[in-house]
Amino acid sequence: MRPSGRTPDEMRPIEIITNFTKHAEGSVLVCFGDTKVLVTASVEERIPPFLRGKGEGWVTAEYSMLPRATHTRGSREAAKGKQSGRTQEIQRLIGRSLRAVTDMKKLGERQITLDCDVLQADGGTRTAAISGAWVALRLAINGLMAKGLVTEDPLTRKVAAVSCGIANGVPVLDLDYIEDSSADADANFVLIEGGHIAEVQATAEGATYDEEGLLRLLRLARIGCDRIFAAQAKAVG
Amino acid sequence: MRPSGRTPDEMRPIEIITNFTKHAEGSVLVCFGDTKVLVTASVEERIPPFLRGKGEGWVTAEYSMLPRATHTRGSREAAKGKQSGRTQEIQRLIGRSLRAVTDMKKLGERQITLDCDVLQADGGTRTAAISGAWVALRLAINGLMAKGLVTEDPLTRKVAAVSCGIANGVPVLDLDYIEDSSADADANFVLIEGGHIAEVQATAEGATYDEEGLLRLLRLARIGCDRIFAAQAKAVG
Amino acid sequence: MRPSGRTPDEMRPIEIITNFTKHAEGSVLVCFGDTKVLVTASVEERIPPFLRGKGEGWVTAEYSMLPRATHTRGSREAAKGKQSGRTQEIQRLIGRSLRAVTDMKKLGERQITLDCDVLQADGGTRTAAISGAWVALRLAINGLMAKGLVTEDPLTRKVAAVSCGIANGVPVLDLDYIEDSSADADANFVLIEGGHIAEVQATAEGATYDEEGLLRLLRLARIGCDRIFAAQAKAVG
Amino acid sequence: MRPSGRTPDEMRPIEIITNFTKHAEGSVLVCFGDTKVLVTASVEERIPPFLRGKGEGWVTAEYSMLPRATHTRGSREAAKGKQSGRTQEIQRLIGRSLRAVTDMKKLGERQITLDCDVLQADGGTRTAAISGAWVALRLAINGLMAKGLVTEDPLTRKVAAVSCGIANGVPVLDLDYIEDSSADADANFVLIEGGHIAEVQATAEGATYDEEGLLRLLRLARIGCDRIFAAQAKAVG
Amino acid sequence: MRPSGRTPDEMRPIEIITNFTKHAEGSVLVCFGDTKVLVTASVEERIPPFLRGKGEGWVTAEYSMLPRATHTRGSREAAKGKQSGRTQEIQRLIGRSLRAVTDMKKLGERQITLDCDVLQADGGTRTAAISGAWVALRLAINGLMAKGLVTEDPLTRKVAAVSCGIANGVPVLDLDYIEDSSADADANFVLIEGGHIAEVQATAEGATYDEEGLLRLLRLARIGCDRIFAAQAKAVG
Amino acid sequence: MRPSGRTPDEMRPIEIITNFTKHAEGSVLVCFGDTKVLVTASVEERIPPFLRGKGEGWVTAEYSMLPRATHTRGSREAAKGKQSGRTQEIQRLIGRSLRAVTDMKKLGERQITLDCDVLQADGGTRTAAISGAWVALRLAINGLMAKGLVTEDPLTRKVAAVSCGIANGVPVLDLDYIEDSSADADANFVLIEGGHIAEVQATAEGATYDEEGLLRLLRLARIGCDRIFAAQAKAVG
Repeated sequence: MRPSGRTPDEMRPIEIITNFTKHAEGSVLVCFGDTKVLVTASVEERIPPFLRGKGEGWVTAEYSMLPRATHTRGSREAAKGKQSGRTQEIQRLIGRSLRAVTDMKKLGERQITLDCDVLQADGGTRTAAISGAWVALRLAINGLMAKGLVTEDPLTRKVAAVSCGIANGVPVLDLDYIEDSSADADANFVLIEGGHIAEVQATAEGATYDEEGLLRLLRLARIGCDRIFAAQAKAVG
Repeated sequence: MRPSGRTPDEMRPIEIITNFTKHAEGSVLVCFGDTKVLVTASVEERIPPFLRGKGEGWVTAEYSMLPRATHTRGSREAAKGKQSGRTQEIQRLIGRSLRAVTDMKKLGERQITLDCDVLQADGGTRTAAISGAWVALRLAINGLMAKGLVTEDPLTRKVAAVSCGIANGVPVLDLDYIEDSSADADANFVLIEGGHIAEVQATAEGATYDEEGLLRLLRLARIGCDRIFAAQAKAVG
Repeated sequence: MRPSGRTPDEMRPIEIITNFTKHAEGSVLVCFGDTKVLVTASVEERIPPFLRGKGEGWVTAEYSMLPRATHTRGSREAAKGKQSGRTQEIQRLIGRSLRAVTDMKKLGERQITLDCDVLQADGGTRTAAISGAWVALRLAINGLMAKGLVTEDPLTRKVAAVSCGIANGVPVLDLDYIEDSSADADANFVLIEGGHIAEVQATAEGATYDEEGLLRLLRLARIGCDRIFAAQAKAVG
Repeated sequence: MRPSGRTPDEMRPIEIITNFTKHAEGSVLVCFGDTKVLVTASVEERIPPFLRGKGEGWVTAEYSMLPRATHTRGSREAAKGKQSGRTQEIQRLIGRSLRAVTDMKKLGERQITLDCDVLQADGGTRTAAISGAWVALRLAINGLMAKGLVTEDPLTRKVAAVSCGIANGVPVLDLDYIEDSSADADANFVLIEGGHIAEVQATAEGATYDEEGLLRLLRLARIGCDRIFAAQAKAVG
Repeated sequence: MRPSGRTPDEMRPIEIITNFTKHAEGSVLVCFGDTKVLVTASVEERIPPFLRGKGEGWVTAEYSMLPRATHTRGSREAAKGKQSGRTQEIQRLIGRSLRAVTDMKKLGERQITLDCDVLQADGGTRTAAISGAWVALRLAINGLMAKGLVTEDPLTRKVAAVSCGIANGVPVLDLDYIEDSSADADANFVLIEGGHIAEVQATAEGATYDEEGLLRLLRLARIGCDRIFAAQAKAVG
Repeated sequence: MRPSGRTPDEMRPIEIITNFTKHAEGSVLVCFGDTKVLVTASVEERIPPFLRGKGEGWVTAEYSMLPRATHTRGSREAAKGKQSGRTQEIQRLIGRSLRAVTDMKKLGERQITLDCDVLQADGGTRTAAISGAWVALRLAINGLMAKGLVTEDPLTRKVAAVSCGIANGVPVLDLDYIEDSSADADANFVLIEGGHIAEVQATAEGATYDEEGLLRLLRLARIGCDRIFAAQAKAVG
């Protein structure tokens, strides 16, 4: 039995509240149980220097935890004067995941920044962020299409992410903080609707796993992402 | 007539949602109209070096805007590697305001940090932050008293803050973003329940004002803070 | 009786030595008693990016204390790699105060930077800096007008600043370090010749004050600033 | 046919030169073809703060590219004043990989730092670094055991890493720079001798892959790591 | 003929004003012509970590130019967030020069920091700083001896510095800014009273010189330092 | 007798391996005994802002020690976020030394950066770096001339550097780490083939020396640099 009483392949309740804030072109509060992430998509009519003159757009992400999103207060990165390695690793992952499903030619010469700020953390903040970011991006692109700035949809596939792990020898889906702290292995899967893999990040600091273990985690991830794809579809109407 | 249709001495609707997040000892979402600030109070059983051995506690604050709290995206301070002068000025003001009503001897050798993160900005973020921070601090101290860690209440007076300004020649209360952008003068008042002043920060970059003008703004601030004191009282029950 | 033997409304001796250094377009050593601040005004034929194409100039300020301006040595901000919140707050205040009396259209597309470096501190460094900065700015603008680069005077009003506080229950003017350390309240007033207020920054960390107290401090400030306006006139005369 | 003329499951020549520099407790120059990484293992009789009093040791890693390890000069991170997200991501991966095979209790209260400096880059720098770091760590621990400072071997299993990718639709092993630049997918596998997985980092920014694709890459990685395990054995032989 | 009308072996007027500021244990304004440097010596009863438990003291220096000490405004290092290579090179030189004449055992476990802030620059700021720093250090040590904290004089020899160069083929002493800008070679000599050399830093970016040239510069430096030793003696009475 | 068994005027074995890495336009591993420095010369078709429009090129240098180049591990400057004063001082010296023999007009509007990374340190890293940098620069310029990008040789003279010191009262050449640690004086000479001096940096923190001592060190340096010039000539063949 899992600490939360869930079955091994059971996700936490997923909630995606659109238009949570009013200024951003896309804005979402995404909750995986008690993990709550505010994601905004900001459209800017400029592109990074390395893309100039290519007729392409760019999608990037930034990630942060509010200092007291966690059980004990963490120091504020802006006050320390630098982002941690963990923060940079996560925001790079979010950006790559969303770029995997965006057609940059169709987006045109503009940049969309996905700001993922964790208001409350209970495990799986990066996977909630990716899953919510897709909705925020969808909303922002809907706006561009409604205004005629983008004519062909650059975002035809969904992307979602979920964590899996091996807890007490049992592969389980969507770990919360308690499970995550004691799990033997921790894997984050970023999957694309229709069966493809965008990213796998599987780590075994305590224990290790074999090919069979990896596949069992991947299969759990498919179950979880199907649940998330459904929630995303419902959120964007 | 003000852009919002309010009368000159009319506050925006005030909403204070307690326990907005679950980990912090005190947690509040405070809204002055469309300005929404998440304030958490974190209790730590340590004090800054300059207080060691004095038998006193400390209250401090940190402030940040989420990048897309505003009309256009601002760059993230953690990514830039430093906090702006504006951010530091505001967080120093919040800290001083709360310390003005806290008895540090009664608090004992512990630190309470008030993290004020602006989720959505529409003018008056620092005044909403101060007003909400009092509630978060109250909740955190209630918890310390309930556990018997603090025996005598260190927080017997309320503190609240509001902005006033002169718009089109008329003194007005609680400016929203549109009014703030075009106002001739801008003043933030931090008042203590019962009639005293904790802080005045009055600036006239465009126009200037005289003694009479300052008094008229102060009287508006009293009206506004009375409204906030009532909302604070209701929030902490 | 005040520690210095002054009456409550008595300023310290004010000394303003012009052309203290030779390279700057305006250069002043301003002394309020033992507080000594070197202010230089540097004219540069460039403007900050946000002003490009507007046909306007800009006035800005930077502030620093030499490490041993104070009783005990403070660490050097250049060595620490960042400016403190206090430094940034003060330099923003100085810049706003001088901009309040400068007509940016008449100044034309150029920037004047006021560098305020405290050689010796004994309370009131920011108010001495503002008061001296007006003289340095005046000298720099005189030079621009003498060269025909500016044809209409952009600086027709004086600005000055002074601190006031409540010490042992008595409102007093122009606090030195000893008084400042023990005062119950501390307020800095930036006033414009002719009776208007440019800035009020009044703080009560220890005690608080009411409307009447604020007015008494403001009236003391008027007395002090009249003294400073006279000294400024004599310096540029 | 691959650009290098290799078959899909063919590694580049592996060379591991031990004692490449003389001061470090373990020192290795590891070459995967033209990718050359200098790895040193430094033993220090201190541990990070979070481990104090636990009777355990720590293994950590730092990674850097010399500015001209690459085709065009990259700017020096020490001169820019911060490590890139890529650098931090890689050094965190190296550290976790080596910790996965080290028994921290047996290591005792000391820290071993693995410095991985890329002298020449031609794809696969992180996997060469991990593979060489195992040898440097082995040499350092041999030294500790020879001196009697460590009595029971904390490093009983080998760890190695290799990159795999899908190039022109074909899964290939150990990509060099040319292949890496044009590959549709890129995966780094960190494997433990005997069949277990320590880490998988599989990314598909251009194309994506399915479960079958992931397994094919994993099987190639097994082939490659077996080659590396043999080279490691020979080096410490 | 030199631009200043001086003969090749003629120093600029040297002025050393002691007790220029009041808080520091030693304080000096040193002028070599129009080059003006404020040097303070601060005594602190603590030593850097690498000296703990050795029963020795330490002398160190920090150097800075005020932004408008020069013909055109330089940016403020505290605002840029780092000290330039030039600044660090100079402050290291000043520290070494003063340590060359200080007996650290006799000084005892305390640190003296020499802050050298250039108020106005006209060539030779580092040599003026070293020469003035000796006086500030002397005054600070006199204070320690007067209080009985130091019983045996740790500073029995004087140290001074001067620049020499080759201008239009002629070796000249104590270059001002105009000469320095066009000189073919530039050398700074730090000499100890009685004939010894503490430091030579001779640079030829434009032209180069031979052994004979170096000796001629050294002999000029002796003449200059004798003048400075006399001025130091007079300043400390 | 010296610790190494060398005579006072005996250099350590000099080895200069060209084309040590493959990407750089010039690449050298230079060894002075156990001191090993990798120097690469990178040609970039851009110049620093202060040279724009002058029709001249630029030569600059960066220097770093790998963390475990030394007996005990030093912290990595990229991780600390800044370069030490020592690093900056050395890289400025290397740059000036190479510029002393380069005709910037003949080089044309391009920049050559000399990256000097110390793989193993045993005293004299900066002098080995300068001596090796000349070879790397020579190779890079040879390449530019072979391609016809540079038509007249901008590098007609060699430059080399060596350290000298006074150990146990005896002037000695090319100090290794043991000698350097205990020497009374330490001097680095940068000499140009044909008899001229480019730089002298002579420091006496412990003892001091007189004119005769300086000349004896300079004469030793001539002996050493002649050895290095021969090795450079052989390396570029």
